[in-house]
Amino acid sequence: MTGDFQHVVLLAGGVGGARMAEGLARALPAGALTVIANVGDDEEFYGLRVCPDVDTLLYTLSDRIDRSQGWGVAYDTVKALDVLRDLGAPVWMKLGDADFGLHIWRSWRLAEGASLSAIVAEAARQWGARADIVPATDERVRTKLNTDEGWMDFQPWFVGRRCIPKVSELRYEGAESAKPAVSASAAIASADLIAFAPSNPLLSIEPILAIPGLRDSIEKCRAPRVGVSPLIGGKAVKGPLARLMQDLGIEATTRAVAGRYAGLLDGFIVDTGDVEDAEALRASGLAVAATEILMGGPEGAERLARELLAFAGKVAIAGERRRG
Amino acid sequence: MTGDFQHVVLLAGGVGGARMAEGLARALPAGALTVIANVGDDEEFYGLRVCPDVDTLLYTLSDRIDRSQGWGVAYDTVKALDVLRDLGAPVWMKLGDADFGLHIWRSWRLAEGASLSAIVAEAARQWGARADIVPATDERVRTKLNTDEGWMDFQPWFVGRRCIPKVSELRYEGAESAKPAVSASAAIASADLIAFAPSNPLLSIEPILAIPGLRDSIEKCRAPRVGVSPLIGGKAVKGPLARLMQDLGIEATTRAVAGRYAGLLDGFIVDTGDVEDAEALRASGLAVAATEILMGGPEGAERLARELLAFAGKVAIAGERRRG
Repeated sequence: MTGDFQHVVLLAGGVGGARMAEGLARALPAGALTVIANVGDDEEFYGLRVCPDVDTLLYTLSDRIDRSQGWGVAYDTVKALDVLRDLGAPVWMKLGDADFGLHIWRSWRLAEGASLSAIVAEAARQWGARADIVPATDERVRTKLNTDEGWMDFQPWFVGRRCIPKVSELRYEGAESAKPAVSASAAIASADLIAFAPSNPLLSIEPILAIPGLRDSIEKCRAPRVGVSPLIGGKAVKGPLARLMQDLGIEATTRAVAGRYAGLLDGFIVDTGDVEDAEALRASGLAVAATEILMGGPEGAERLARELLAFAGKVAIAGERRRG
Repeated sequence: MTGDFQHVVLLAGGVGGARMAEGLARALPAGALTVIANVGDDEEFYGLRVCPDVDTLLYTLSDRIDRSQGWGVAYDTVKALDVLRDLGAPVWMKLGDADFGLHIWRSWRLAEGASLSAIVAEAARQWGARADIVPATDERVRTKLNTDEGWMDFQPWFVGRRCIPKVSELRYEGAESAKPAVSASAAIASADLIAFAPSNPLLSIEPILAIPGLRDSIEKCRAPRVGVSPLIGGKAVKGPLARLMQDLGIEATTRAVAGRYAGLLDGFIVDTGDVEDAEALRASGLAVAATEILMGGPEGAERLARELLAFAGKVAIAGERRRG
């Protein structure tokens, strides 16, 4: 097997995951990429289902994204939200007008009985997204955080309280009993490469892996499985990962992130600067590549994606040899 | 009793009704006006409850209205609707972004168990509307039209098909069994004047009167009850009234409109030009005033409102004498 992958599955959260997805979509042939998206962050606002990670993927892969912030729709306005504020509703979640269009449509289709994966597939097709986007499950999984202010849902903690409450425990409510979306299982079954985006392992990737059917199929999968570290020198490119790891008593290092994926990874890409982590991971038997993991814009994402594919090609060959 | 009314109830539909309401609000002391609004036009779009007449009243009385069209929010945009169109949803009902804010909020509050009248009262208070606005009932009443294309709901006929299908029959589904909103009954019980806006009798006023509790209380009410004709020389100022009357085999005249309100009216205001109608109505025992009933803007609406109040004062005195 070479780096010439035809069926790539990416496990991803929101902003960082979408950037990696965009890079892979640019580097791969059309139709080769399926992104399995975290749904643990999904939340109801005013009775409407909002799926932040899925939507960031949809917007990014269909060129609707507000690139200055990495989420939301470019040039969006907030007239609906202003009205909701005027009417006394809580408006800490910034939902734009175009964004509301998607939430209204999804909630309507859900109420009519459509599955979330069918709805997302329909939106991706209508918008010409450059990858298949599949929510990890059609059921509800809710990332819950036990904090010094009590148990909180993800969005109230992340957006509503700007990650200030200190977290002592995480739970992915509903994950244990959730069935994978059929299209997610199918994508893994036919994958010739499984990639882990440089997303937050605790908040984006593990809510996916907490669904037993998905973890099992990745564990047993014969395709190479490679991840990209979300940390550079112990710091997250974006978001609260490093502090969250510390709060939970986990060392905020690249090797600790890879450790979270034990049994699920064949190779890991770390930042050039994280030499000690690279050595430790190699010593543990993992294939390691070191490169600049900061993506910046779409070109940088494509560069990282090409490096990931080349690395995965080598990992695949080594794996074939081992299996002999 | 004089023209110095303190508790005025106006029965109203959308655009014309809201204009009359604005005129009365300008002419009356603060807190004196309660508008009972038609809900027969209400419809669900994408699972959201839209109440066109209530909303036109809310927007007009809180100075949010798009005055160029008489409905919707001034300077509104349609980003959400554009997204819904992109996603393949039917978008024949023009719903703006600020407008969606109200529909989202209302649908959310309804799902939480709030009554429509409580929700509308809350919006009116938050927005400082210059009158109390009360939906005729908290229950669903649906104006249905039997057309040469079959039975249709109001909005699909009115907006979706631009009133083109010929109507042979009207039905106010749910009205017979609907209870009046408590605040509507209370307003009528304490009213010293009941006014009928120059709204479409068949599509705006009769769906209100079809609720037995409301019709009864207006029938038995001792306050003067005066209406304003929506027709000038057999033509409606706006909307499909004249053609609808013809389709239904009703003469499209001011006297025919007054005839629809038989037993509910003490006086009727007709246009100066409709001399024959005025004479016929006087002959039938109704008090009649003739004036220019075209309101134009808010000043014209206030002028008509002041004439209505003066006329109602005379009707009241005559009524007192009769009962004497």
